[in-house]
Amino acid sequence: MTSRYKIVIAYDGSRYHGWQIQPNALSIQEEIETVLFKILQSKITLTGSGRTDTNVHAIGQVAHFDAKILDTQKFITSLNALLPKDISVLSLDNVPKSFHARYSALKKIYHYHIDLNTVQEPFSRFYQYHHPQKLDLHQIRKGAKILLGTHDFQSFANKKKGCHDFIRTLFRLDILEENKKVRFEFEGDGFLYKMVRNIVGTLLDVGRGKTSLEELQHILESKDRKNASAAIPGHGLFLIQVIYPKSLSSIEENEG
Amino acid sequence: MTSRYKIVIAYDGSRYHGWQIQPNALSIQEEIETVLFKILQSKITLTGSGRTDTNVHAIGQVAHFDAKILDTQKFITSLNALLPKDISVLSLDNVPKSFHARYSALKKIYHYHIDLNTVQEPFSRFYQYHHPQKLDLHQIRKGAKILLGTHDFQSFANKKKGCHDFIRTLFRLDILEENKKVRFEFEGDGFLYKMVRNIVGTLLDVGRGKTSLEELQHILESKDRKNASAAIPGHGLFLIQVIYPKSLSSIEENEG
Repeated sequence: MTSRYKIVIAYDGSRYHGWQIQPNALSIQEEIETVLFKILQSKITLTGSGRTDTNVHAIGQVAHFDAKILDTQKFITSLNALLPKDISVLSLDNVPKSFHARYSALKKIYHYHIDLNTVQEPFSRFYQYHHPQKLDLHQIRKGAKILLGTHDFQSFANKKKGCHDFIRTLFRLDILEENKKVRFEFEGDGFLYKMVRNIVGTLLDVGRGKTSLEELQHILESKDRKNASAAIPGHGLFLIQVIYPKSLSSIEENEG
Repeated sequence: MTSRYKIVIAYDGSRYHGWQIQPNALSIQEEIETVLFKILQSKITLTGSGRTDTNVHAIGQVAHFDAKILDTQKFITSLNALLPKDISVLSLDNVPKSFHARYSALKKIYHYHIDLNTVQEPFSRFYQYHHPQKLDLHQIRKGAKILLGTHDFQSFANKKKGCHDFIRTLFRLDILEENKKVRFEFEGDGFLYKMVRNIVGTLLDVGRGKTSLEELQHILESKDRKNASAAIPGHGLFLIQVIYPKSLSSIEENEG
């Protein structure tokens, strides 16, 4: 009998073509499945909470899989010993069979990092989008308020096959600044394809006066991707946390 | 007529065999001199404030050189456009001819970063020494107090040809902790070869109870490198700032 496991993963996305397995490209999912096969000697399929794109990072990506594991602590140690250094398994928990990394998720938190300094420190180059421009953060925060709440976010979604539901709820969108480093913090019930990067790109245009608040309102209401600004690069984006109902949290090992 | 320039440089040391030019190995100094040659079409020699070792990083390394530069802002832009992405020139100032990056330095600040978490997040792997152990920081801080002030630091210096003066003054050695990340902040009038890493290595042994405070006192007084603990890896070390007398700070461009 197998049990269901929830795995929390951090990764530096710089080397990868995103989370999801695809032909002829390195993916985080494939790296982990390869190591799971090495340890368990059987093909395990990971189901992630959602995809992350090329160069996007995660501090708290979540996936589930079914397997028989005797000692989760030892299993984490083996996984981390065999995984490449840019992927770390942070935790592994036995969860009820009804847990689904994607469908059970209540909320997701994403951060987008921008570096406004004229010259970027080399340490930031893979983790912060270098955007050495004057930004009116006050205006950007006003723009963020327009986007809060439940909307059809189609204007900020790149097309993806089979997606017809564009209604999402944005609970929180905070813009924090320290030493010319700006962090956009998104908390929502779900995010459409490239939605975070399209929103930040559009708000940057609000911040430099290219797009007015009235235009932003119009972009949102138009439900037309062509009206919003271009997506900004993936390397500034971090999937921070995926939140699930308490009732689906870990169960005791010996119940498994 | 050439003028003297003070250049402040940040670099990610991961790819380099340290600051100083050496045969058959990549160095930060060589990368910058190569770019200076491309722009100025003459051989320029950089004099650094001191060497940094393999994998050691800098946020504020300082060097000087003599050249004729018309517009320093444009020159910085050209340098950064031609330099590899892991080296950034932060500032360039015309300084008096008496300025010497090494001999004029009054103080240097180094930070050493340690990650105590059981599993290291991948983002930290090139910038924090992963040391998943229980540490008594209170005891480490007591140890740090023993090292403060003016001492012969020979016990903490790896041998280097031509170095006979081991007297240095440590003005400040603070140990800060947040979320299982520990930062050692050193401020001194100068540092011997591998001194910071030898001191941190020894203080880690104090923190895990292997070395007592009495033994630490003895190690310092013995003036014998064999008694201190091994140096810890270079990748946790950052040269933060080199401080010079105000009288040697930048002079106006048109005086040059």
